[in-house]
Amino acid sequence: MDKRIRVAIVGYGNIGRYALQAAAEAADIEVAGIVRRQGMKDCPQELMGYKVVTEDMVEELGHVDVAILATPTRSVEEYAKRFLARGINTVDSFDIHGQIVDLRRSLDKVAKEHGAVSIISAGWDPGSDSIVRTLMESLAPRGITYTNFGPGRSMGHSVCVRSKAGVRDALSMTIPVGQGIHRRMVYVELEPGADLEEVTRAIKADPYFASDETHVFQVESVDALNDVGHGVNLVRKGVSGQTHNQIFEFNMKINNPALTAQVLVNVARASMRQQPGCYTMIELPVIDMLPGNREDIIRHLV
Amino acid sequence: MDKRIRVAIVGYGNIGRYALQAAAEAADIEVAGIVRRQGMKDCPQELMGYKVVTEDMVEELGHVDVAILATPTRSVEEYAKRFLARGINTVDSFDIHGQIVDLRRSLDKVAKEHGAVSIISAGWDPGSDSIVRTLMESLAPRGITYTNFGPGRSMGHSVCVRSKAGVRDALSMTIPVGQGIHRRMVYVELEPGADLEEVTRAIKADPYFASDETHVFQVESVDALNDVGHGVNLVRKGVSGQTHNQIFEFNMKINNPALTAQVLVNVARASMRQQPGCYTMIELPVIDMLPGNREDIIRHLV
Repeated sequence: MDKRIRVAIVGYGNIGRYALQAAAEAADIEVAGIVRRQGMKDCPQELMGYKVVTEDMVEELGHVDVAILATPTRSVEEYAKRFLARGINTVDSFDIHGQIVDLRRSLDKVAKEHGAVSIISAGWDPGSDSIVRTLMESLAPRGITYTNFGPGRSMGHSVCVRSKAGVRDALSMTIPVGQGIHRRMVYVELEPGADLEEVTRAIKADPYFASDETHVFQVESVDALNDVGHGVNLVRKGVSGQTHNQIFEFNMKINNPALTAQVLVNVARASMRQQPGCYTMIELPVIDMLPGNREDIIRHLV
Repeated sequence: MDKRIRVAIVGYGNIGRYALQAAAEAADIEVAGIVRRQGMKDCPQELMGYKVVTEDMVEELGHVDVAILATPTRSVEEYAKRFLARGINTVDSFDIHGQIVDLRRSLDKVAKEHGAVSIISAGWDPGSDSIVRTLMESLAPRGITYTNFGPGRSMGHSVCVRSKAGVRDALSMTIPVGQGIHRRMVYVELEPGADLEEVTRAIKADPYFASDETHVFQVESVDALNDVGHGVNLVRKGVSGQTHNQIFEFNMKINNPALTAQVLVNVARASMRQQPGCYTMIELPVIDMLPGNREDIIRHLV
């Protein structure tokens, strides 16, 4: 009897591709299929061995334990509700920090009604960084934590620049300058006739950039600068009990979509071990994200 | 109605002192009292405001939710069983890595019989480091993790040196040299007539030191070198999905007993939120270690 966890990957953009790779590497996980709006139309070569369906044909995938939502953040709630209503667990990497509590409330209700589990905001930030931040705060309850991102591109900032008149393509790099302050290095490909000075003014006036040091450069090709590497430096200095000057630091240098996808696969596994409801990653025991025997994991990692 | 968690601190040595400080700083925790073998005999000044009892008089503390076992590691199991049998949760920082699974089995049985919760090996290593190691392994399932300790004193190695003929007092410092390899810097106060060369030979021949680069120095006063600072550098390089060269690092520089005590207080709180049984820290949601409203924590830290 095959006890592998059957996952469907919903959305086959950047994160979906990496999620398929991460799922393929996990011995305890089986890919039931891929759900994409286009179905089999223009289906990428590497999906030839998989069932590829549109959402209304999802029953063709057979039993599905978990839907990995590799969709845009703004579509997460609607997709999650529909899959939860089918009794299928969902995992996502919803990344609008200010709306996480609302999403959790909304999906918790639907998940419980249908005996399913939803794990939200499961990427690296929000996600694994949230676990580190929570752990650090517990270790020194009084103190200050700084989350320093980068160097790496910011999708949100890049999209913002692309929306400016005269901009054909854009890349906004986030550069950490310490204490949670970031410099923005913006590279733009301009439309013929567009004026760099005007574009620069428009970018710097946008709320996305207004409070950060921002530099704008014109380039021939934004695509030529493309690199999905990213990083974080999380630091906390604080007080354990009554003892000051306790210092904690977490660093990583990573391929951004590869890590996000790995986290999604990890929480897909973890979703099978939770009671019905909606959870963020700090509400999961970290052991639940690993495959294998619990005692073996404890022997190896505690 | 006072809903604070009532803890008893069992053992008032180094960790017990710091545990009292950490408990005193936690608004949601109330110290029911201190349990020590000597009871009120030679009671330190700072305990004057607390009930101090021997274990057979523990009922005098009134209701106790959690016993914080600040006892030597080798006595943890016996103490834990007795407190669990009273229906009192226990937390400890049992630190013999190879025996954690056995302790967990043994206490799980007793805890479940009495509807109580036991959280074991809750310090910084094993403990908070275990959470970081588990998280890192989940983020890059294939790869290598190195745990580099120090600079800081090793209690086990220091005790080992003290047991050698001719040694009056000793301090063994652990120095990280990378990739989980450590240098041992040993400082000894000798008995009159003892020979440094002979002592050095005996130390280097001991299994505690035989596989590490070890240097032995004679000093006038070991006490004059005393510093409870310690540190760790945890690094993992590995593969997320099919993407290699993902790099993760966790560092801390801390007062060792202060951090251990803070973790004990954190898991005392977390013990109130688990089902009966015995747990290591990687089996707890990190959110359970923080006080306060869950949604507020999610809003603040996810």
